[in-house]
Amino acid sequence: MARVTFYLDDKIVETEVEQGATLLEAASISGIYVNSNCGGEGICGTCKFLIKDGQIERGPAGLLTKEEVEEGYVLACQTKVLGDVKVEVPLETRIEEGQILIDKDAKKLRTIRAGGEEVFFTREPLVDKLYLELPKPSLDDNLSDHQRLYRKIRSKKKVPILQTGLTMLQEIPTILRDNQWAITATLGMMGDTTELLQVEGGDTSGRNYGIAVDIGTSTVVVHLVNLNSSKTVDGEAKYNSQMKYGEDVIRRIIHADEEGPEELHSLIIDDINGLISTLIFRNKVRRDDITSVSCSGNTTMLHFLLNLPASWIRKTPYVSASASPPPIKATELGIKINKGGLVYVVPMIGGWVGGDITAGILACGMDKSEKLSLLIDIGTNGEIVIGNKDWMISCSASAGPAFEGTGAESGMRASRGAVEHVTMNDGRIDYSTIGDGKPKGICGSGLIDLVAELFKAELIDRRGALDPRKSDRIRERDGQSEFVMVPGSKTEIGKDIVITQPDIENLLRAKAAIYAGANILIKSLGLEFKDFERILIAGGFGSYLDRRKTQILGLIPDIPLERIQFVGNTSIIGAKMALLSREALDACHRIAESVTYIDLISYPNYYDEFMAAMFLPHTDLERFPTITQELSREV
Amino acid sequence: MARVTFYLDDKIVETEVEQGATLLEAASISGIYVNSNCGGEGICGTCKFLIKDGQIERGPAGLLTKEEVEEGYVLACQTKVLGDVKVEVPLETRIEEGQILIDKDAKKLRTIRAGGEEVFFTREPLVDKLYLELPKPSLDDNLSDHQRLYRKIRSKKKVPILQTGLTMLQEIPTILRDNQWAITATLGMMGDTTELLQVEGGDTSGRNYGIAVDIGTSTVVVHLVNLNSSKTVDGEAKYNSQMKYGEDVIRRIIHADEEGPEELHSLIIDDINGLISTLIFRNKVRRDDITSVSCSGNTTMLHFLLNLPASWIRKTPYVSASASPPPIKATELGIKINKGGLVYVVPMIGGWVGGDITAGILACGMDKSEKLSLLIDIGTNGEIVIGNKDWMISCSASAGPAFEGTGAESGMRASRGAVEHVTMNDGRIDYSTIGDGKPKGICGSGLIDLVAELFKAELIDRRGALDPRKSDRIRERDGQSEFVMVPGSKTEIGKDIVITQPDIENLLRAKAAIYAGANILIKSLGLEFKDFERILIAGGFGSYLDRRKTQILGLIPDIPLERIQFVGNTSIIGAKMALLSREALDACHRIAESVTYIDLISYPNYYDEFMAAMFLPHTDLERFPTITQELSREV
Repeated sequence: MARVTFYLDDKIVETEVEQGATLLEAASISGIYVNSNCGGEGICGTCKFLIKDGQIERGPAGLLTKEEVEEGYVLACQTKVLGDVKVEVPLETRIEEGQILIDKDAKKLRTIRAGGEEVFFTREPLVDKLYLELPKPSLDDNLSDHQRLYRKIRSKKKVPILQTGLTMLQEIPTILRDNQWAITATLGMMGDTTELLQVEGGDTSGRNYGIAVDIGTSTVVVHLVNLNSSKTVDGEAKYNSQMKYGEDVIRRIIHADEEGPEELHSLIIDDINGLISTLIFRNKVRRDDITSVSCSGNTTMLHFLLNLPASWIRKTPYVSASASPPPIKATELGIKINKGGLVYVVPMIGGWVGGDITAGILACGMDKSEKLSLLIDIGTNGEIVIGNKDWMISCSASAGPAFEGTGAESGMRASRGAVEHVTMNDGRIDYSTIGDGKPKGICGSGLIDLVAELFKAELIDRRGALDPRKSDRIRERDGQSEFVMVPGSKTEIGKDIVITQPDIENLLRAKAAIYAGANILIKSLGLEFKDFERILIAGGFGSYLDRRKTQILGLIPDIPLERIQFVGNTSIIGAKMALLSREALDACHRIAESVTYIDLISYPNYYDEFMAAMFLPHTDLERFPTITQELSREV
Repeated sequence: MARVTFYLDDKIVETEVEQGATLLEAASISGIYVNSNCGGEGICGTCKFLIKDGQIERGPAGLLTKEEVEEGYVLACQTKVLGDVKVEVPLETRIEEGQILIDKDAKKLRTIRAGGEEVFFTREPLVDKLYLELPKPSLDDNLSDHQRLYRKIRSKKKVPILQTGLTMLQEIPTILRDNQWAITATLGMMGDTTELLQVEGGDTSGRNYGIAVDIGTSTVVVHLVNLNSSKTVDGEAKYNSQMKYGEDVIRRIIHADEEGPEELHSLIIDDINGLISTLIFRNKVRRDDITSVSCSGNTTMLHFLLNLPASWIRKTPYVSASASPPPIKATELGIKINKGGLVYVVPMIGGWVGGDITAGILACGMDKSEKLSLLIDIGTNGEIVIGNKDWMISCSASAGPAFEGTGAESGMRASRGAVEHVTMNDGRIDYSTIGDGKPKGICGSGLIDLVAELFKAELIDRRGALDPRKSDRIRERDGQSEFVMVPGSKTEIGKDIVITQPDIENLLRAKAAIYAGANILIKSLGLEFKDFERILIAGGFGSYLDRRKTQILGLIPDIPLERIQFVGNTSIIGAKMALLSREALDACHRIAESVTYIDLISYPNYYDEFMAAMFLPHTDLERFPTITQELSREV
């Protein structure tokens, strides 16, 4: 045994390992979370440690610079411990505390549950494992190894069309004989066919995990799912690294057109790999036991994921390269799971209504419900779907990332330290943060609450303008007004947490775009908001929204609160349902093919509707009668 | 224009080409056949030319040695002509005249015809091309490019399950728009599914070629087939380069077990690539227009082709890795055709009865005939099948390569210069050669004729022993007897063409193995040779056998000649039928699954039968009554 001493910035951790263990393994045992984007293959440089003292065996240096190697940096995954070792773990190598906070949805969605109505799907994971004991060949039964295996698989499972690649066929004979004809076959559904993805010795059928991914324009969320128990094990999220190339999909498509799509493609692959690494590390799941990935997201994000050309999505008539891509080998995309593993993409409705909405409709059971529903998915784009099991119509409104916390002065993603709820009473501000610690910033739900409370307290007017005469907390800085919600002395970051006049205006623009879009879609069918039995609000805000405050903001129409339901990140819920049930994926295909898309641009009154919705709650107060009454204000 | 002067060993050829043309293109225009194993990719070294003078632009040197480059050798495919050039074409670079002789089967089998009975299959090539003009997208019809293409394909052809790889999906949008939505789709059948293999601009549907391959233990035969007209364009054959690792499959499996299978795999791939290169060069077919390859052969050869482990074929209970491998991408195997092209393998019956026999049964229509037939496929192994449309039983007998001309002192493959027929009258020897030139050696049919004639002329006895007292042509050399058929002065090679005592003994062993095998199989079912309405003799002898002489040899039983039919190389005929007709490939699958295999080793009297058949025509003359009568000899 050898002793490894880890020097972290705030503490020292010691552990004992077998000689020959890697530093990455030692860190794992010690509960030190370390970045490892390449999955321990020694080809990136994210798991770098600094050797202070001791006996090690160095391996490849990956992307470390010459200078770093000379200074004593090594890749933890490639460095073996030969004797007692002292190592420093640099800050950038460690996974941040905030980053590893479990997405609340992950814990919540342990069962497949549709918003409001339960919908049941038969459990049949897209990738499944079968333990098989084959009879040995004899002169009376000397079928080829390939056919012998097929015969056994078919005796256990209905797989009319079974496909196998050449490499598998080359390996099967030896695997069968080395394991006394007792093996586990991993089978992946590829549309109407089934592919034999892996054959391994012994019974590994108890270990089968999947990854559900929601690729948002601003946020990437990943859940780890146990495919045997159908339970969500853990979740993780981060900002989409593509954001440096533009906040919205249009700018990213233009970037791809000008510079090529490869960079955007590899950024999203890296994001997903990083999140998967975090999850398997934290939950001690073997990478080889992850056999499938199901990805949801808007059409542009899914195109970048697959490196499909997105150019024609942004131009009329908004044509995507593929609305229904087939399952792809994870290795072909560079997603680091089992080498035979498959990546599924939730089918898309159109260029501007993606797989996230297909997944949302599935998760809410809209496609099976008699009730007339309105689904609003609030992200960087706001997508709106109305209908029931017989018909569905959708549109998309460009909201911008205001609701995802990015762009705002003190905005942040819904993770540890984010203010998620705000109330104001007689000038006193109460708030709660995710993880209950000191605040670092404000996430989407906190921003909605805050603006609603500012309006209720009359600190902003119907146009959202801050009135410095109403509060000491309103100040002028760099030529613009801002409201100080938490003074720097009480924050984690040592800086004031504020909402600026432009922040408020961005939020109003975002809500106006969505409200106007929903209103136009509904009116075009001769309907009114009150005709809907339920309004489902989806989005990755990090927490449930205060329904009343969304109405004060004018985001959600003034209908009885009991009809409004916050359904969380339905994109990832739907992706997970597909991962766990072939029937659910089949339903996604039917949904994607049946939903009609309406282009808002073709409605000449969209701009007027949008401008009218830029007020709190709306220019036309008759549309928000109970809010108007509640606020009891002269307007 | 630039003038290129080629110096061949026997002549000078001049041509004019555009500046920038390669030397390989210049040679092609001039009708100079050149080896080009890698297909002009500059990675092998087979197309080497020696520059004598002139202006050229050199490219990569491939496998040329440093010395060769210094001496002025270049790769013809990588060297551009910039001005007038003089080049020497070395002998080893040129494709031999003999080598380019068209296999007679190739010309003969322009239609699918079963031996004796015509069997019709619907023309539906395994890989087909469709020219499609797609409607441009509009706001009312903005399906994704992927779905738009599928919709159009399905309007033209019934393809319930259509699959497409990621790379294709990435390329389709640009190809569609660059070609004004008019494209040609190449579709490949993959079992019950169809794969979109290629999408190219414009209408290329008129250019679709396939390659049929028969991989024999000793000889590899390749035919080029026009998939639109169903006509065989040309054929080519060569010895299997694996022969240096053993004449029979057992020795090659042992070699693979000891040294790994890669060498045997790459030898057969190189052989096929070389033959394809010759065919496309000679017929001016573009490599890209070859979309499919169908391979037949014995089980071991097909395993080496796919690099599947063959170890367990040779050990009881003779289990193959796969009897029915799926279609494989040509690029995965390194076979150089269209990069999306597919390689199909004719399904095998068992470890010792391969795809060549499945193809043979198909070609002869045995699986559709009411008649009781006996099919004998004579190659390095002799396979025997008996039965009709209701049942079929097969066995395999190890013959050795005697009938393929290899191993014998003056033996050669059936190609230009081979003696294919021999008659002797009163001591005078008449013979004919393939191509009608001076003889270079004797092929299988010539050896059979010669031995039969020697026996008729009493120059050998019933055990095959040469009697030097009977003829001046029989002489002693290096301690063994031999018969001089053609003196060196009359041959192409300047050497005597002879048959030695061991050659005769090898031929007797080969015919004994096959006759004994057939006899045992038939007896085991309580049948006799006379019960068969037809005896079909298959094999790549290069020419029709003289039926009577096969009976004198004792290879074929003494039944009325009209029941004996020489059906040629049915392995390649069947492979070609599969290439041209999905229905034929489906029939192959049914055949492979329904034929029963009998192991001759399990019959204790096999050795006795074999020994009894080592005589001319047989120990038991009562089995050959008409032969005995004809020869009118006291025995």
